[in-house]
Amino acid sequence: MSFDIRRLSERKLSGEALSGEELRWVIEAYTAGEIGDAPVAAWLMAVCAKGLSDEETWHLTQAMAHSGQMLDLSSIARPTVDKHSTGGVGDKVTLVAGPIAAACGVCVPKMSGRGLGHTGGTIDKLEAIAGLRTDLSAEQFIAQAREMGLVVASQSSDLAPADGKLYALRDATGTVDSRGLIASSIMSKKIASGAEAIVLEVTVGSGAFMGTVEEARALAGLMIALGERAGRRMAALLTDMNRPLGRAVGNAVEVEEAAAVLAGGGPADVREVSLEIAALMLVTAGVQCDLPAARECAGSALRSGAAAEKFAEMVRAQRGDPSALDRTLLGHAPAHIADFGADDSGIVTRMDALSVGRAALAAGAGRRRKGDSVDPATGLRIISAEGERTERGVPVIEVLAASEQHAEVALEELRRGIVISDRPAEQRPPMLELMSSRMSSEDSR
Amino acid sequence: MSFDIRRLSERKLSGEALSGEELRWVIEAYTAGEIGDAPVAAWLMAVCAKGLSDEETWHLTQAMAHSGQMLDLSSIARPTVDKHSTGGVGDKVTLVAGPIAAACGVCVPKMSGRGLGHTGGTIDKLEAIAGLRTDLSAEQFIAQAREMGLVVASQSSDLAPADGKLYALRDATGTVDSRGLIASSIMSKKIASGAEAIVLEVTVGSGAFMGTVEEARALAGLMIALGERAGRRMAALLTDMNRPLGRAVGNAVEVEEAAAVLAGGGPADVREVSLEIAALMLVTAGVQCDLPAARECAGSALRSGAAAEKFAEMVRAQRGDPSALDRTLLGHAPAHIADFGADDSGIVTRMDALSVGRAALAAGAGRRRKGDSVDPATGLRIISAEGERTERGVPVIEVLAASEQHAEVALEELRRGIVISDRPAEQRPPMLELMSSRMSSEDSR
Repeated sequence: MSFDIRRLSERKLSGEALSGEELRWVIEAYTAGEIGDAPVAAWLMAVCAKGLSDEETWHLTQAMAHSGQMLDLSSIARPTVDKHSTGGVGDKVTLVAGPIAAACGVCVPKMSGRGLGHTGGTIDKLEAIAGLRTDLSAEQFIAQAREMGLVVASQSSDLAPADGKLYALRDATGTVDSRGLIASSIMSKKIASGAEAIVLEVTVGSGAFMGTVEEARALAGLMIALGERAGRRMAALLTDMNRPLGRAVGNAVEVEEAAAVLAGGGPADVREVSLEIAALMLVTAGVQCDLPAARECAGSALRSGAAAEKFAEMVRAQRGDPSALDRTLLGHAPAHIADFGADDSGIVTRMDALSVGRAALAAGAGRRRKGDSVDPATGLRIISAEGERTERGVPVIEVLAASEQHAEVALEELRRGIVISDRPAEQRPPMLELMSSRMSSEDSR
Repeated sequence: MSFDIRRLSERKLSGEALSGEELRWVIEAYTAGEIGDAPVAAWLMAVCAKGLSDEETWHLTQAMAHSGQMLDLSSIARPTVDKHSTGGVGDKVTLVAGPIAAACGVCVPKMSGRGLGHTGGTIDKLEAIAGLRTDLSAEQFIAQAREMGLVVASQSSDLAPADGKLYALRDATGTVDSRGLIASSIMSKKIASGAEAIVLEVTVGSGAFMGTVEEARALAGLMIALGERAGRRMAALLTDMNRPLGRAVGNAVEVEEAAAVLAGGGPADVREVSLEIAALMLVTAGVQCDLPAARECAGSALRSGAAAEKFAEMVRAQRGDPSALDRTLLGHAPAHIADFGADDSGIVTRMDALSVGRAALAAGAGRRRKGDSVDPATGLRIISAEGERTERGVPVIEVLAASEQHAEVALEELRRGIVISDRPAEQRPPMLELMSSRMSSEDSR
């Protein structure tokens, strides 16, 4: 069966919904190179203009999930649970929640992406650990998951290759911002990755895809429905991304902070969100029957050091050097350090996540285009976070940059997003809302 | 100055109007190959979704008109007037109105296109005359216009090259249907072609771009405004394209019909529309002060044979053999002839222009894709037109086809669009509405 992509675009633009057969054909023909980038880019823009119905989103998700290998995790005895964040600034939750959940008895076989634009990627962060490998084969990935219950590898190109190709096109053509496209992109990869349960961290605010709680709730609801229709157990936590999470943004500097949290210290917001995500993973995977019990288990795995030991075990298994975790910036040294300070003493009334993310990108920690390299030593250390007092002459943020020029651009970005005044900051709880069809609302605190 | 095409697409999709500087950049960067097909295809779809303001359409038109050579017709002493049709089925008006207007003293330097899809192109038709050349250089084009006041050449690739590239992309990506894009495409070429006056034939109905009189009026009004803003004198005639014009659809067969009209015979609708377009050309060019006088002049040029002689003169100048005009189908012979007949006697209640156009395309007269070749011998002869009686066993349409297989597909198309019953056909005047800021409404009949 073959269709005319131009007619499908025209029909989409006129507001019609396309059939499963038509959407499958678009994905298959595009992945096979039978239709070119340009007509698919036009189709994507028609989708952005008119949206996708839930039924269309489901067919698109299925077509992309089945465009490559479907990972078979049946050889893993423990319940498997995956975790995904829609992206943020300073979001190192995977590096903390994954080890906690694994220490509590579930298996966390996680494929992650690299950073793009102002949002970081877990793989870039992990690779700041000297020697650590993330390009595991499917066999290595499954074997490590089976043996220690925790593996974080880079997204295999064999999994949902259609999504990889389509995402690159969306990124190049300004057709990223569509709820249906975002949901199908994420869920096609998660479904192909094989875990029985999936916990989503859906970020909301200036530094996130979703600007408002309403948008984030709609995206989370759609992804939960897609996962459940594919036979997965689902939960989502909406988290605030109007300001960065924690006090470290970058690569080595974020791993350092994650290690500090696993060691019992670190910023409270990173600890709280990570514990809640870990608890959700335990309940969704079915190893804890309710959230209070799961929180108890997660907290004790963190306090006992079992989670930190699990993380070190994973680092060793992936050929990284765990002793790097004890060194400042994992032993990296940035080429240039600059301070962002206040002209006057006052309160950090606003620290915009998007500006901070762009500053970290400018410092050298991110990539503007797919394929760019990142500098593991670079990023930001937040000395005074939103809501805290700062004194004239004391740095608010320390910029770890690849060069003086990089630092200049980063400082420029920070000037746009940081307000110091005598007004207090808006109150923003780091966690906003829990969504799950399996947990009662009394479970959430 | 450089912009991010993705941001421009996102802003367009959000309903914003782009600036002249931004639109100029899109056109220049795309023509120069600095941005690829895919992001521009997405931008075009955003334009189709949200439309263009009149101001945006003007900037786009200007940018495309100035993307190549601007033809300088100042060496031509007579007033110059160009003519353009938005495309139809059986529309050979240029071949009749051009010679009439030229015989009445204006200069008609016309660049034409080739057919695409179900609409024919004047160049394909003219090339059915043995030996006739349409690929004239700018110097040849201007010289012939100066010497005899009439030249019809194929659109030079040096004129508005941005439009050529953009149109090919629109055709390949389902982004053709946008009033602003259609108007800027047509007017950029007409403005670059240099004539002082431009008369538009805007077709309306199933076989046209514009389905309704309202749409056609809006398109014509937009094109008139664009032309006047560029300093040209403008007029437009809305014509019916729910049924084919005349009784011939194809290439040689249409030239044959045009020659018959120039010789004083031929179908009444072709004669009427051609005389009116010619009269409009005379008034718009300023050689006649009102329409009644212009009609008088046009009618007498047709009756006297001066228009026919002007056409033959043009054919000779472009190295065609005018004696071909005396031979059936200009001396061509189709490979296969089939009859489309009625099962019963009755009235041709409906003869849908789109179906007839598609049938001619299927017979071999048109091209499905740019670059396909056409068979000059093929097309359709309409024996009984809409509104006329037909008898069982007598053909309604004669299909002149490139092969028996071609004829089969053509007959299939005709079956979809022709209704024979005992009900009379709807009354459809061939001319619907005259639009011009220079002629009073009393001028139109």
